[in-house]
Amino acid sequence: MQTSPSTQIVNVGGYQIGGPQFTVIAGPCSIESYDQFSETAKGVKAAGAHILRGGIWKMRTSSKAFQGLGPSAFDMIKTVCRETGMTLVSEVTDARQIEQLHDVVSCYQVGSRNMHNYSLLKELGQQKKPVMLKRGFAAFIEEWIKASEYITNGGNPNVILCERGIRTFETATRNTLDLNAVVFAKKNSHLPVIVDPSHAVGIRELVAPLALASAAAGADGIIVEVHPRPSEALSDGMQALTMGDFNTMMHKLEKVLIAVDRPLHKEVVYAN
Amino acid sequence: MQTSPSTQIVNVGGYQIGGPQFTVIAGPCSIESYDQFSETAKGVKAAGAHILRGGIWKMRTSSKAFQGLGPSAFDMIKTVCRETGMTLVSEVTDARQIEQLHDVVSCYQVGSRNMHNYSLLKELGQQKKPVMLKRGFAAFIEEWIKASEYITNGGNPNVILCERGIRTFETATRNTLDLNAVVFAKKNSHLPVIVDPSHAVGIRELVAPLALASAAAGADGIIVEVHPRPSEALSDGMQALTMGDFNTMMHKLEKVLIAVDRPLHKEVVYAN
Amino acid sequence: MQTSPSTQIVNVGGYQIGGPQFTVIAGPCSIESYDQFSETAKGVKAAGAHILRGGIWKMRTSSKAFQGLGPSAFDMIKTVCRETGMTLVSEVTDARQIEQLHDVVSCYQVGSRNMHNYSLLKELGQQKKPVMLKRGFAAFIEEWIKASEYITNGGNPNVILCERGIRTFETATRNTLDLNAVVFAKKNSHLPVIVDPSHAVGIRELVAPLALASAAAGADGIIVEVHPRPSEALSDGMQALTMGDFNTMMHKLEKVLIAVDRPLHKEVVYAN
Amino acid sequence: MQTSPSTQIVNVGGYQIGGPQFTVIAGPCSIESYDQFSETAKGVKAAGAHILRGGIWKMRTSSKAFQGLGPSAFDMIKTVCRETGMTLVSEVTDARQIEQLHDVVSCYQVGSRNMHNYSLLKELGQQKKPVMLKRGFAAFIEEWIKASEYITNGGNPNVILCERGIRTFETATRNTLDLNAVVFAKKNSHLPVIVDPSHAVGIRELVAPLALASAAAGADGIIVEVHPRPSEALSDGMQALTMGDFNTMMHKLEKVLIAVDRPLHKEVVYAN
Repeated sequence: MQTSPSTQIVNVGGYQIGGPQFTVIAGPCSIESYDQFSETAKGVKAAGAHILRGGIWKMRTSSKAFQGLGPSAFDMIKTVCRETGMTLVSEVTDARQIEQLHDVVSCYQVGSRNMHNYSLLKELGQQKKPVMLKRGFAAFIEEWIKASEYITNGGNPNVILCERGIRTFETATRNTLDLNAVVFAKKNSHLPVIVDPSHAVGIRELVAPLALASAAAGADGIIVEVHPRPSEALSDGMQALTMGDFNTMMHKLEKVLIAVDRPLHKEVVYAN
Repeated sequence: MQTSPSTQIVNVGGYQIGGPQFTVIAGPCSIESYDQFSETAKGVKAAGAHILRGGIWKMRTSSKAFQGLGPSAFDMIKTVCRETGMTLVSEVTDARQIEQLHDVVSCYQVGSRNMHNYSLLKELGQQKKPVMLKRGFAAFIEEWIKASEYITNGGNPNVILCERGIRTFETATRNTLDLNAVVFAKKNSHLPVIVDPSHAVGIRELVAPLALASAAAGADGIIVEVHPRPSEALSDGMQALTMGDFNTMMHKLEKVLIAVDRPLHKEVVYAN
Repeated sequence: MQTSPSTQIVNVGGYQIGGPQFTVIAGPCSIESYDQFSETAKGVKAAGAHILRGGIWKMRTSSKAFQGLGPSAFDMIKTVCRETGMTLVSEVTDARQIEQLHDVVSCYQVGSRNMHNYSLLKELGQQKKPVMLKRGFAAFIEEWIKASEYITNGGNPNVILCERGIRTFETATRNTLDLNAVVFAKKNSHLPVIVDPSHAVGIRELVAPLALASAAAGADGIIVEVHPRPSEALSDGMQALTMGDFNTMMHKLEKVLIAVDRPLHKEVVYAN
Repeated sequence: MQTSPSTQIVNVGGYQIGGPQFTVIAGPCSIESYDQFSETAKGVKAAGAHILRGGIWKMRTSSKAFQGLGPSAFDMIKTVCRETGMTLVSEVTDARQIEQLHDVVSCYQVGSRNMHNYSLLKELGQQKKPVMLKRGFAAFIEEWIKASEYITNGGNPNVILCERGIRTFETATRNTLDLNAVVFAKKNSHLPVIVDPSHAVGIRELVAPLALASAAAGADGIIVEVHPRPSEALSDGMQALTMGDFNTMMHKLEKVLIAVDRPLHKEVVYAN
């Protein structure tokens, strides 16, 4: 069961998520500058990543923390995507950003804090572009699947579920990765399910083994934070992999994926 | 400490929340019809409530559940407010509703699922009308207080914090009322703090003792669900008090409040 | 409902717990010396406490932390009880201590970490002396009530339930006081229910308002940590009330209890 | 890091747990009869398991549920171990069982509910036989590691940590498997760490993918419930694998373990 493709396959930037191959999405937490984003993009591509991630508007607990570059990042994003042939998944934090982002991303991301923002989900149901729906950090699996129906019932079938760790009593790690939820959702939903091990654990050295675990459990892909110089990152530096870490992880991941008959995508199947 | 007024006093419909008197907000979960809302409003006023509550747009886990009457309720709300001399606190679930609601409510409510919706909070910071900020059901007290700064830093000092229960392992009750958070927030924030015992426990018979406990702990007020016929309620009927329950609770509450030197408001101090 | 006496009334040291009066148990976390225990006992008695608490064997996370005085405390305990006319509730951490403690305590305490130690509970079911069963910090209310049946089914009906806070995601307070559980257990069990606000919040300044809240919610009593010099305590100093704090709390508590028709015991009804 | 052997290697029944090979412990939740236990033992051995599991005294929430066969099972256990050449890991629920079990088990198990039973842990520190210490279902990782020091500081270095799922808000699965804790404990403790996916998820179909995930994350082994006819099991039938399920899982597990350079033990290295 757990290693089979999903019933619903979602095409993002030419890669079929939920099909027989495994998808790797990688990039920085926040897009900070052309140099940082371009260097990361080229690095993760060389290591085998398929799709880019990178925040444009950030949801920060404190109103004084870095809130993202906003629309001033659009041009550099388009340049980097053109240079690498990759596409971007990025978070929409307000319904009024949907249209702005339309030409910038291949997939909208709904963050954990917005999983219950049904007003936003309903508007994404009017779109054709795929939506990656992160699980609320305290959402029941059933609420997560029901939240996806706000999008699919609206007419957009292209939803990818993403487990990113839940809030529990444990404080040694940033969140608690819930792989039970991944195997449960694979069994009880028709949608692809991917994992964000970076937010789920929040400690760089522990990201790679949890990425391998996600692959072995039957996830359809992972989304991972990578930064060329994590200590200089404007957000989430503690959990970002260096290029070297990412490269090493990809080699191990490839072996585990072969063991579970779920190889990495090797090339773009068809353009979006 | 815990029974003292707050540094910041917030005027809602002529009642000073956070001052030396205690405020009771009551009404149905959802506004369903003129008859239901009017009957409830008159009943809770007669029993001593100061302000009305009632949902216009509801946040529901399932996209198929009753989603509230929306703007079609505006006229009946104005009528009921005029008839009773009371004002309404109601939830805003999308920034684009702020303007629509402006003439309908005396205080915007941000629901638990939207506490992290910083985009919405920023826009409420542009308003002058008070905002009741419910704690996210899995938000740290510190996140809740920091979320309030998205509003106050924007220029609107009139924020009331509302504890409404958190999500824990326990399943016998709907949520776990966290009175620790109430006394902690009273000590570590300058804002008034009220309690919603209805959502916090979700079982009608247990609402009243928890309302008394909230008063004894030093909360500045409560917000309680009341329905003339709970079994017919379109949402949250299990936790709504009947008129009789509410009346009985108010009598007990009055005694506890006198014991802690925090009497109920007896009249409107001045119009908004 | 919530302010009524329990069906089962448990006599501890001459006080009927669960009857129409409210019981206050107070004393240090650990019994450290004759001077410390005697001074505390006389102080809490003068302020109106009915029964003493004090640890003899401590359950400590670290094997290197102070583990309690053990049997070397027995003589001083008997002296202090004789001098004050009070009796002691103290924790049994191993079934082989039951007999040793028999002449030292008027009520055995089962700590939160041992609520699931069914082997210990079964042996306490063979006793006649009352047992105070603290809720496991991650136990469902139902598990707590079922754990009490290991004692009552064994033949000892004298069980008092004690809510002492649960472990949740929140870290600002030591635990999360669950007053929902108190009102739920009062309704769904025939046993008396008391509250330990000291462990439930872990912050001295917040203990008193939560004690008042417990009384208003309908608890049958409280158990509170008091230390003459909290900064010198060998365990849990952060949450111990000073004598002055305790005295102030008792005055406020008395008023709240009158408001809910549940006055403090004024004298010993009959000897055990 | 995560796939390396531990500093401390613990020999159980001739298998080095924490060394370069991976260990599989399998058997029924409870030992119910000679036929049930013998059939299971032979089946799991044929499929590649190394060590047997099976409960003799059970910790049950209800005092009326099946509590295990107790000492009447000792003879059949010895017979089955002789017939299969395997050894047994079984839970000790009371310090007075330590001596009774000495000739019956190759490794004592401390269950999740007893992780905080420091009195029991101290006595196991006086033993030479290995101890498998399950994590308390609401224990911080740090408490779990500190609990192990009650044993190792007493003089018994042979401790194996076992993650078995934690209690969180999620109710769709029995517990939440915390693989973060496994990788964190591998990094921050010198002890071997194994995983119990059966209790961690509680749903038969989901056990195998989580076993594979545990192996990929770098665990040193797994402990799995298997029953010849799960529907007839006296405890935990919902989560027991059938013989066929177990066999299929072992084939997949073998491939994943090769991919992470951590093969299954192929033979007993030396007798205990």
